[in-house]
Amino acid sequence: MARPTASEGRRRAIIERVTPCVDGGRYPAKRCIGDSVVVEADVFMDGDETLRCVTLYRRHGEARWHEAEMVALGNDHWRAAFDVTALGRYEFTVSAWPDAFRTWRRDLARWTAAEDVAVTLQVGGALLRDIARRVRGVDARHLREWIARLAADVDPLVRRSEAMDEALVSLVESHADRRCASTFAPALPIWVEPLLARFSAWYEMFPRSAASGKRHGTFADCEARLTEVVEMGFDVLYFPPIHPIGRTKRKGRNNALVAASDDPGSPWAIGATEGGHKSIHPQLGTAADFRRLVKSARARGLEIALDIAYQCSPDHPYVTEHPAWFRHRPDGSIQYAENPPKKYQDIYPFNFDTDDWRALWDELKSIVDHWIGEGVRVFRVDNPHTKPFALWDWLLAEVKAVHPDVVFLSEAFTRPRPMHRLAKAGFTQSYTYFAWRNTKEELTQYFTELSQAPSREYFRPNAWPNTPDILTAYLQAGGRPAFVVRLVLAATLAASYGIYGPAFELLEHLPREPGSEEYLHSEKYEIRDWPRERADSLRPLVARINAIRRANKALQQDRELRFHAIDNPEMICYSKAAADGENVVLVVVNLDPFHKQSGFVDLALAELGIDTVQPFEVEDLLTQARYTWHGARNYVELRPQEMPAHVFRVSPLVRHEVQPAAASALA
Amino acid sequence: MARPTASEGRRRAIIERVTPCVDGGRYPAKRCIGDSVVVEADVFMDGDETLRCVTLYRRHGEARWHEAEMVALGNDHWRAAFDVTALGRYEFTVSAWPDAFRTWRRDLARWTAAEDVAVTLQVGGALLRDIARRVRGVDARHLREWIARLAADVDPLVRRSEAMDEALVSLVESHADRRCASTFAPALPIWVEPLLARFSAWYEMFPRSAASGKRHGTFADCEARLTEVVEMGFDVLYFPPIHPIGRTKRKGRNNALVAASDDPGSPWAIGATEGGHKSIHPQLGTAADFRRLVKSARARGLEIALDIAYQCSPDHPYVTEHPAWFRHRPDGSIQYAENPPKKYQDIYPFNFDTDDWRALWDELKSIVDHWIGEGVRVFRVDNPHTKPFALWDWLLAEVKAVHPDVVFLSEAFTRPRPMHRLAKAGFTQSYTYFAWRNTKEELTQYFTELSQAPSREYFRPNAWPNTPDILTAYLQAGGRPAFVVRLVLAATLAASYGIYGPAFELLEHLPREPGSEEYLHSEKYEIRDWPRERADSLRPLVARINAIRRANKALQQDRELRFHAIDNPEMICYSKAAADGENVVLVVVNLDPFHKQSGFVDLALAELGIDTVQPFEVEDLLTQARYTWHGARNYVELRPQEMPAHVFRVSPLVRHEVQPAAASALA
Repeated sequence: MARPTASEGRRRAIIERVTPCVDGGRYPAKRCIGDSVVVEADVFMDGDETLRCVTLYRRHGEARWHEAEMVALGNDHWRAAFDVTALGRYEFTVSAWPDAFRTWRRDLARWTAAEDVAVTLQVGGALLRDIARRVRGVDARHLREWIARLAADVDPLVRRSEAMDEALVSLVESHADRRCASTFAPALPIWVEPLLARFSAWYEMFPRSAASGKRHGTFADCEARLTEVVEMGFDVLYFPPIHPIGRTKRKGRNNALVAASDDPGSPWAIGATEGGHKSIHPQLGTAADFRRLVKSARARGLEIALDIAYQCSPDHPYVTEHPAWFRHRPDGSIQYAENPPKKYQDIYPFNFDTDDWRALWDELKSIVDHWIGEGVRVFRVDNPHTKPFALWDWLLAEVKAVHPDVVFLSEAFTRPRPMHRLAKAGFTQSYTYFAWRNTKEELTQYFTELSQAPSREYFRPNAWPNTPDILTAYLQAGGRPAFVVRLVLAATLAASYGIYGPAFELLEHLPREPGSEEYLHSEKYEIRDWPRERADSLRPLVARINAIRRANKALQQDRELRFHAIDNPEMICYSKAAADGENVVLVVVNLDPFHKQSGFVDLALAELGIDTVQPFEVEDLLTQARYTWHGARNYVELRPQEMPAHVFRVSPLVRHEVQPAAASALA
Repeated sequence: MARPTASEGRRRAIIERVTPCVDGGRYPAKRCIGDSVVVEADVFMDGDETLRCVTLYRRHGEARWHEAEMVALGNDHWRAAFDVTALGRYEFTVSAWPDAFRTWRRDLARWTAAEDVAVTLQVGGALLRDIARRVRGVDARHLREWIARLAADVDPLVRRSEAMDEALVSLVESHADRRCASTFAPALPIWVEPLLARFSAWYEMFPRSAASGKRHGTFADCEARLTEVVEMGFDVLYFPPIHPIGRTKRKGRNNALVAASDDPGSPWAIGATEGGHKSIHPQLGTAADFRRLVKSARARGLEIALDIAYQCSPDHPYVTEHPAWFRHRPDGSIQYAENPPKKYQDIYPFNFDTDDWRALWDELKSIVDHWIGEGVRVFRVDNPHTKPFALWDWLLAEVKAVHPDVVFLSEAFTRPRPMHRLAKAGFTQSYTYFAWRNTKEELTQYFTELSQAPSREYFRPNAWPNTPDILTAYLQAGGRPAFVVRLVLAATLAASYGIYGPAFELLEHLPREPGSEEYLHSEKYEIRDWPRERADSLRPLVARINAIRRANKALQQDRELRFHAIDNPEMICYSKAAADGENVVLVVVNLDPFHKQSGFVDLALAELGIDTVQPFEVEDLLTQARYTWHGARNYVELRPQEMPAHVFRVSPLVRHEVQPAAASALA
């Protein structure tokens, strides 16, 4: 082991287990602007001297560190907090040093004999003289005064009580000797993102179905639909790819291998003679139309999200311009996507093993930059787990360094480790397994993990009950109540959620064939004329749910989620609480879409900050019904055909003050 | 983010959560010579290609890495193991790369149409040609033969089955293309220590009480006692400091502030005119006597352990030779140890904040080196938590780099974090809170943590029921049964344990005053004439317990400890199992030293590898009693005055084979 140099041997403070920390600091922990970052660490030193301990933090590029004093919580564990007020990268660390003055002060208080106090006062004088040598100005004068007082010809016990003055502590601590301070290295990164990163409601819509009837929709049709989406209360309107669609091997309706002449093809078969990933499908409109739509949406509080799908149709200009970016087969043809024995001949994946990978990466990044230039701030990335993780490490860091307000949603429906690795690479949010978590046990286990496991520092879930690829068995079978159940669960279990509409609110539930999760007449392969005004549309309920989300801070974060017992396996009960404890939302859902279910909830009241003795009020924000509850155990009953869920706001009952007259009558 | 260079962009394998790993690799995980190091990691890549994954390992200083193929356990988790066959530092890491050949082979098997198989065979031919370009000799010839076979004018389905030959896999894998391999960095350290580090029984004895009567004992007297200690089955005989003892402010019997002229003083008040930490107290003997004792003990399988106590009596030569190594008070006197309002005027601590700290560190290390030179291989370090952790980081690494066979026991009875930090610094073993863990709940919780928490990678517990400083209330009050209980617990819960004798086996239990953990007539301040031959001495039981430990591999490690239910709060039940499952020891202890207790154990049989249906035998290794048990639930009853514990060896019953005659009768 290398021999310690310089003051290293005298750095006696030890700093360990500094959090938040992802993989030892390889990746940043994620926060949103305005958040208070709580830093904790184990800090201690040899012997029994007193320590001082601070968190140092700064924005990336700032020359000077800011400081927050850490407080000892016991068992050598310390805590401080600082606010992040700007987007982008921060770093923080912990610094600690022996506090000779506080150690001395503690010992001074403990001595009993006047003789010992007198000697200790002398020791203190020496300490102050050491400091005074380093100090100039008013403080130096004050220090000299203190030195004189400690040495004055006065009863040592009197001098001791003088020396305990807090003013002396402040004076000395502002000149702390940090030459032997230990500082945790390397500093740990924090990535600060916009609030949308933590709290967002997404609405997915195929622009080509935005018109009424079978006409190919345009951006202008989309603009006309904005009111609908805004009134439903969404934050993000996400479009599948809007680029020219290939004609070679184009897929027909219901994924037919051969397309009819009027079949529009899958928007994910990107690229044609009209252009590739930076071009717009001519039938949707022009770049100017698109920019206007983005602007118009933003003016109404809605972000347009684009799909980033790094793959090409055989007609994509890249195929001829950059043959090296594709894999070639022995017969000279280009390797299409395949998963033997399945073939996806309308899609050419990129060959990331190409010698020309740098040029490929640059071009892929330029696609994102192009759309940022067109005003887009939110991207949904298609199958990022089939592209190298190193690409995302680089691309996301590069883009976010310049545009820290941009949000990326990772569409990786794959195994947990790759999904987590993408989140570490910098994806803001991630799709989840929510669609396939239906039972009480599954939901409890999964959302406890999402909200409580260490991965919450970097993995932000986005819960979707359906997507154009996912029509679950539960939705196929459960009728309207099933849609309501999944909507309420998604929107209240996860601070970010999304639906694929109008399929969702119009209760679209027929699969292509039994056992399939594909939609019959999937919009992926044809234009749909949605019966938007059907009477049982969930549109009003969606609007209500999103309004509840906006009005209740408890639902705008994922950390303060907890499940409560309910004595019916078909029912689930959980609460979310705002970090400040001011807002508590309690949700009870009947997971059985067919039958009335009832049971007794057993609430962990103390953890919700609710008095266990006094009554409290729960107001169902879906129905405006109010109930007065007492204690932990309360009865609930939910009829799926009416409303399979309660979304309660919990409030302590406003109690009438005892009137003076009544009070005196009691006296 | 820096742009990836060279092949970095094509390193598609991701390697995470590599274990064993202490604090991200800042400190080594500890193992013993001969151990199999199990390496695990999360390894995956983008897409659905097949990976190959190896653990690389080597001794520190070896130029070449050795390799162990890792096996996928599912969910992207991989495992391999390698043996450590030498003492000292090893390092290991994990390397992984896309296995193009196995991916191709997998796809080849999946195609159904002959046409697809034919194209895939062509692709394989190209793969083999790529490899053949890098290969010389016989393998190149074999590769060319394979290329010809894959391209032969033969039915593609026939060629496919030929291509599945395992010989081709071996041929190709021995020439794997690792240019785009990812390797986890930095490599993680492992520290390999002698077996004594994991499994050891310690006996503490004051050499000055080794004689009979009140005469000051000598090393020759100690030599005469070796038989006793060896027969009791100990591995380490530990002596408190053997150095000259200061006279200034010497403590008298029972810690009296003033010593009588014939009081020998505390051996921890090190240093006098006769010398300091490298000298021997003249009444114990000479350096030659000591060396002979060490040799003689080692010849009988016993290591002599010395005490390293870095502190000085006021008479220590360092005090005059190195005044800068001590803190000076305003009156010019040297600062003695104090904990206001307590004073320890016979002890001067070192001032580690001195400007001369390097010379001090060098001198302190030279003390250890001196005694290693005298033949010592085991040290018990006194209060290491009152010296800088950086000192231990440096000193232990330096010493162990040259003498990897040396073992250090940390005597830090302090808070958990400093104790753990010392273990990370390189202490081989650590004293524990065992002495104060008496109830079933306390013992279960503490030993579950010690054996199962991640800290087990570096923190090796050593359990002591008593020390010269610790006579617990339980031992004071509980009589002989209490001593037996604590002996059995220490020796079977922990692979390393120790007793302070002869106090322990002679049931010494009187405190200096009520409420104190100090012994009356503590050997720290006087020579004791122990009644070694008293009839109720625990010596035979200690010998029996240590013999059981030596005969049962299950008791020689701490990892495979598990607690089993028993329906009596005064009784505890646990098992240890050898890693190979061949040896299972089950212990039941009545923690109540006063009353008979009984109850039903409820064993986790499956986890012990025991058939839940067939009967099995338990043999009490303390009493030789044998019982046949059936299933998980079995009755036990323990009378503390007879024997408050069972130490069972568990064996499946030898069942008689069905005889041929009987078998045919049944047919």
